[in-house]
Amino acid sequence: MTTTPTRALNGVDTDTLFATIDAVRNQPELARFQFRTSTEWISGTHNRTTIGGFHGAGGEHEHKQSYTVDADHPAVLVGQDDAPTPAEHLLQALGSCLTSGLANIAAARGIELGEVTARVEGDIDLRGILGISDEVRNGFQDIRVTFHVSGAAEAEKLARLVHQARDRSAVFDVLTHGVPVTVDVATA
Amino acid sequence: MTTTPTRALNGVDTDTLFATIDAVRNQPELARFQFRTSTEWISGTHNRTTIGGFHGAGGEHEHKQSYTVDADHPAVLVGQDDAPTPAEHLLQALGSCLTSGLANIAAARGIELGEVTARVEGDIDLRGILGISDEVRNGFQDIRVTFHVSGAAEAEKLARLVHQARDRSAVFDVLTHGVPVTVDVATA
Repeated sequence: MTTTPTRALNGVDTDTLFATIDAVRNQPELARFQFRTSTEWISGTHNRTTIGGFHGAGGEHEHKQSYTVDADHPAVLVGQDDAPTPAEHLLQALGSCLTSGLANIAAARGIELGEVTARVEGDIDLRGILGISDEVRNGFQDIRVTFHVSGAAEAEKLARLVHQARDRSAVFDVLTHGVPVTVDVATA
Repeated sequence: MTTTPTRALNGVDTDTLFATIDAVRNQPELARFQFRTSTEWISGTHNRTTIGGFHGAGGEHEHKQSYTVDADHPAVLVGQDDAPTPAEHLLQALGSCLTSGLANIAAARGIELGEVTARVEGDIDLRGILGISDEVRNGFQDIRVTFHVSGAAEAEKLARLVHQARDRSAVFDVLTHGVPVTVDVATA
C-alpha cells in the first residue's frame, strides 16, 4: 500500500483546496456562509468585538477559539488610543483578504512564494464624520494597496497573482462595489 | 482661582470633542487624515497586519503602541483557523465604527449610556471567490447590524443615537457607497 503525500505549497494544502472547490461545484448550497461579529461598548470610543461562530458548508462552526478585536480612536480624535481605529481595521481587512487569496492562488498555480507584504493607505477628510460639512463624505475618498511579492517565478507571473487576488477578493468587492447594509435597533 | 472640571460623559471628554470640532471648522486642512496598515504574509492564508503611524491634524502621529492584527481562514476553508477571517474583520470594522460614533454622539447630546452591543451578520456565497460562478459576487450580498442600547433616555432617543451613528460612520459610508481602490505591485 502506498499513500499520496498531501501537497502543501506556501502552507496551502492544495489537494484539499481543489477537493473543496469540487465539492462546492457539485453542491452549491455548501457555499452559503454567514459570518457574525458582536461588538460591546467599553468606554468612550473604545469597544471590543467578539468573533466566535459562523455558518457555512451546510452547518454551524465555531472557530477553534473565540477571538476578540479592540478598536478605539487616537488621542488627536479625543479617544484613549487603546487600539487601532475602526477605519484602520477596514484597511487591515482589505490587506489581509488580498494576501490570503494571493497565497491560495500561488499554491494553486504551483508558485512558491518568498515574502509578501501589502501596504494599504486610505485618505479621509474628517469634516464628514465631524458633521462640519455635508459636502464631504464620511468615509475614505481613496484607498491604495501596494504589494511587494517575491517568489520562484518571473515578475510578470507574480504580478498576475496580485491581480487575480484582487479579482477574487471578498473585501475588495464590497469596498469597490458597495453592499446593502441595514442598521436596526432591537426593541427589548 | 477656579478651574472648570472636564466633563466626561460615557468616557468621552466632551469639552475636548467640541473644541476639536471648532478647531477643524476654523482650519479645515486639519481634517485631512491618512490611515495606513501593512500586512505581512506568514503561511497559507495566515497573515499579520501592523498598524503604527498615521497622518492627521496637520502632522504625523504614532499610536501609543504599534498594534498587530492577525487573519486566517478556518479549517473548512482550508486554513489553519489561527485568527478571524478577513471577512469577519470587515464586519468588526463596521460594528466598532458605529459603536465608537454612538458613544460620542450620546455624550454630545448629554445621554448617559448603559450597555451597548452591535451584532453584525453578513451573508456571502463563496462560489464567487472560489471561481465557480461568475454570476455570484465575491463579497457579502447583505449585511445586517442589530443594536441593543440601554441608557438614561427614552427608547426613541436611544434609537436616534443609532441612526445618527449610522449617518456619520466612515465604515458604513464606504461599505454602502463604495470607494475607489487601486491595487498595484511594486517593481523592486
